This record gives sequence, C-alpha cells and structure tokens, in this order.
Amino acid sequence: MNTVRPLIVQEVCLRDGLQIEPVFVATADKIRLADAFSALGFARIEVSSFVSPKAVPALADAAEVFAGMQRAPGTVYVALVPNLKGAERALAAGAGELNLVMSAGQTHNLANMRMTTDESFEGFARIAALPRGNVLLNGSVATAFGCPFEGAQPVAKVLDLVRRYLDLGCTGITLADTTGMANPRQVAALVEQALPLVGADALTLHFHNTRGLGLANVVAAYDAGAQRFDAALGGLGGCPFAPGASGNICTEDLVAMCEEMGIPTGLDLPALIALSRGLPALVGHETAGQVAKAGRVADLHPAPPGLRAA
Amino acid sequence: MNTVRPLIVQEVCLRDGLQIEPVFVATADKIRLADAFSALGFARIEVSSFVSPKAVPALADAAEVFAGMQRAPGTVYVALVPNLKGAERALAAGAGELNLVMSAGQTHNLANMRMTTDESFEGFARIAALPRGNVLLNGSVATAFGCPFEGAQPVAKVLDLVRRYLDLGCTGITLADTTGMANPRQVAALVEQALPLVGADALTLHFHNTRGLGLANVVAAYDAGAQRFDAALGGLGGCPFAPGASGNICTEDLVAMCEEMGIPTGLDLPALIALSRGLPALVGHETAGQVAKAGRVADLHPAPPGLRAA
Repeated sequence: MNTVRPLIVQEVCLRDGLQIEPVFVATADKIRLADAFSALGFARIEVSSFVSPKAVPALADAAEVFAGMQRAPGTVYVALVPNLKGAERALAAGAGELNLVMSAGQTHNLANMRMTTDESFEGFARIAALPRGNVLLNGSVATAFGCPFEGAQPVAKVLDLVRRYLDLGCTGITLADTTGMANPRQVAALVEQALPLVGADALTLHFHNTRGLGLANVVAAYDAGAQRFDAALGGLGGCPFAPGASGNICTEDLVAMCEEMGIPTGLDLPALIALSRGLPALVGHETAGQVAKAGRVADLHPAPPGLRAA
Repeated sequence: MNTVRPLIVQEVCLRDGLQIEPVFVATADKIRLADAFSALGFARIEVSSFVSPKAVPALADAAEVFAGMQRAPGTVYVALVPNLKGAERALAAGAGELNLVMSAGQTHNLANMRMTTDESFEGFARIAALPRGNVLLNGSVATAFGCPFEGAQPVAKVLDLVRRYLDLGCTGITLADTTGMANPRQVAALVEQALPLVGADALTLHFHNTRGLGLANVVAAYDAGAQRFDAALGGLGGCPFAPGASGNICTEDLVAMCEEMGIPTGLDLPALIALSRGLPALVGHETAGQVAKAGRVADLHPAPPGLRAA
C-alpha cells in the first residue's frame, strides 16, 4: 500500500483537450500553453494532431505550434498521427514522437479514420519505414476498453493490436478509453495482461472521465503496476456522444490525488491550478476540473468570524 | 477480485442534496421524489433534516415531507438530527432512524452546530434516553477525513468518536467526508480500522466528489470491506467552500459503476437516470451527475451513416 512508485503524467490538453472545442484557440495561446507545460517539467506533451484540417479545424495550426514553441531538454513532444501523410507532416514539423492511432472497434476506426484496422496498420508499416532519426514511435489503441458503436472489445483482440504495434517497432503503447467506458476491475485486468508484453515504462493509460470513473481507473491501473497516464489540464476534451459530459481526466485533479496519496509526480500543483484557471478565458466555458474550483485539500479556510471558544 | 458482495446505496439527495440549494423545492416535489426512491427499493432514504429552519430554509418542511410520503415496508426513513429538539421533532414526524451528526473537527462543529464536541454528545445522550420504540439511532462523524478549517483529523480521534456513538447505543455509524478531502489510501486505512469496531453491516461511508475522488474512494472502501454508501441522485449537494464544485457522489453514477464492475446493488439504473434527468427542472441548474448526460456504457450508438464496409 505505501508504495512510492512515481506516477508519470503526460499532458494531452493541447491535442485531445482542444480538438473537440468549437472555438479555435489562437496559435499564440497554444504556444504559450505548450511553453508553460514545458516549464512545469512534463515528461511528455502531446502538442497537436496531424490530421485533415477539415476533420479537426481546431488543430489546423499543428505545424505552427511545433515551430513556435520552446523545447525543454528531456521533454518528448508528441504528434498524433493517423496515416502516412500525417507522419510526414509531423516529422517535418520536428515532432519528437509520432503517436500512431487506430481503434480496437472496427466501426470506430471506419468512422474516425475512414480505414479498416488492417488498412491502418498498412499505413503504420509505411510510417515505420520512414527515415526518422531518433524520433520515437508510440502505438495507441483507441476504444480499447469499449467501442461506443460495438460495445466491449475482447481482451485478446486488444492485446493482438498491441503486438502488431510492437512488431512495427513501437517503443510505447497507449491503451485508450476513448469514450469513457472503462471500469476499475476491467482496467486492472487489462493492465495485468498488457504489462508482460509492454513493460510499465512503455505503457500509457489514457482515460476519459465521461462517466465519472477516470480517477478510479487511474488508481486501479496504478495499483496493477501501470505508471504512465495521459491527462488534460482542466479536464478539457469531451465526447461527441455525450454532450456536457467530462472529457479527459484532469491533470491537476490527478496530481492533487497523487499528492494526497503520497505518490510523487514531480509536478507543481499550485502552478497547474493557476494555469488551469486561465483555460475558461481561452475556450469560452467552464472546465470540468474540480481542484481548480475547490482548491487543494491543503488549502484550509479561516474559521468563520464570531465563533465562540470551545 | 471477482467478489459479488452487494453494495448498498443509501439515497441522501432529499437531505444532503437539497440543503445547500438556494431554491426551495416545493414540498409536493420532495414527496414525489421520496415516493420515487421508495418505489426504486432503496434500503435507506434520508428524507430531511430537523434543524433550525433559519439555518437551513431549504428543509423547513421536514415534518410535512415525512407526513406526505408513502412508506415502503423494509425501507428505513432517516432524519438528520443535530440536537434534542430536532430529535423530538423527528420522532413526532415518524422518522424510522435518527441520524445524529457532529464533526470530528471542533471548529467545524462550532461553526455548524454552535456546540463543542462534548456538548454534542451531551445532547446525544439525552436523545438516546428518549422513548423511541423501534426507531434506530445512527451516529455520523462529519469531517472524518479532514476538516476544512483544521485539516487532517487523527484516526484515533475519529475512532474515539465512533466508540462514543456505539456506547450511546447507536446501531449504525457513518464516516463522512463532508467537504471532499478524502483520498483512496486514507479511506482504505480508516475503513480497515473502523470495521472491527462497527461491522460492515453497520458502517456507512459518505463521500463527496468535491475534488473528483468520490467514486475512487468508494472502490477503495468497498475493497477494504465496506458495503454501505450514501449517494445523492444527480450528485446534488455541494460545498460552501467550493462554489461550482461537485457535491455528494452521484447515485446513478455509483450504480452504473457497480453494474460495470459486476457488483449488485438491486437498483434499476435506467429508472434512476430518468429520475435524475428531472432534477434540473426542480433546482434550476444542471447537475454534476455524469451518467445522466453520457448514458450507460451499455447504451451503444448507431454507426454514423454512410460508413464504407470493412
């Protein structure tokens, strides 16, 4: 119980947080956020997505953000990439890691990527063959804990997709609960089966808080041996099938939980909260994050005035 | 891992959910909600609070709600009671259980109850001496996981308060995280220490989702052996120190989580969701509950039109 294994938080607000926002956050504001994340010392920052600007207009400035931001030594700057064309653009922009993505659910892959699973992997093979110097390859399995069209995804199928990514030379694997369908028991079971294939230093869990289970799933995954987690400042993001529901798990809520549980993250919680409190001005609405509203557990309140003595 | 121990959900929306609402929900609507909870088969329903109507105007109609609602056999109808006068009113109204409440944090007790801890227990001793037939007594320790004024509360102090309640003849004990300061590690540790004193059939955990950890705390408590949990439809409630933050853990989100984890609750999730979707009309704002917005995990979506074949 009293482990002090660190938990590594990877910031995905700029990509998964902003991609669903109806407003276009100005490129300069994205760059300012990226630089703030770098200054905070995140190990990995997912900067943007090299997809069709028609499909995701919010991230049409991916190359400009990569070009304009500062780079901290030791931080990996990630670009989400669905296909060969996106990979070429990401490499040209100087991404430090290509995050390949396809969905365990065939219907979701067809809907999101306009490709079958096999076609996605044909494209990934071409990407893996590109000269890329020391740029890393991560393979993401979206809808790994359930597909909003098909429902549950068999564990054997998910693990087979993991193996296909590893066979391509991916040095990192992400299991993503894209629409917030995972539960703690399922998470513990899948992490236990994935770790022998992937290793804790290479496995990322990506949870959404769509149904309120995001942090419960983190605890289950961490207790099963996982250590790397995606999260978005303010809990930005969302789900096209759940208007009003939460998006990604919230970076500062996750870091606050870790602090209370005695799990080191290396991140500065007050600085994260301050940064998160600036998000509503950028996106035009309140965010789902709770700690930015409630304050840290350690932020005690003065006793009400006029209390009688005990 | 594959336990099928049931998890007992106790509905507190009418009391802890409504008490902080600025609007007065009409007595007839409260009665309708109470009857709906009875029809759903909750084991315990906290109906109202017999406190000063000046302090909590939202619950000034406590006696009228008790008088107007139907009573299902086997359901315990609970009244929150801070002092002797409240207990007398609750007994006159026909409450099936008096839920005594005081705070582990002395400052919180002085602020909320205008009494010291010892004065609270002097009043409880008088309540315990009242003739009450087969009306049950539950003892609640508020701020058991942290006081917003004082911070952490020593486990020994919390357990001592539990013993004082038991010595008075309480047959149930509630450990309440009144302002959402608990974390899963702390919860597991306190439950493990409380269970030998109280027993799982008599111990209730009462969590707030103020900082997003409500359901993670439920999992930790359940896995440590607890089985009874308070929750409020829609996640109503809130915290005076955290404007905009969530309130009680949400009944339908908790039941949805249990269903996905294979833990029986005996409650009808679609009916709960339908009931919860009527709350915004009563309280005049969106509620914090997630599943009422996102739907159940099992509520799959049709594939988008025009998808090519795989």
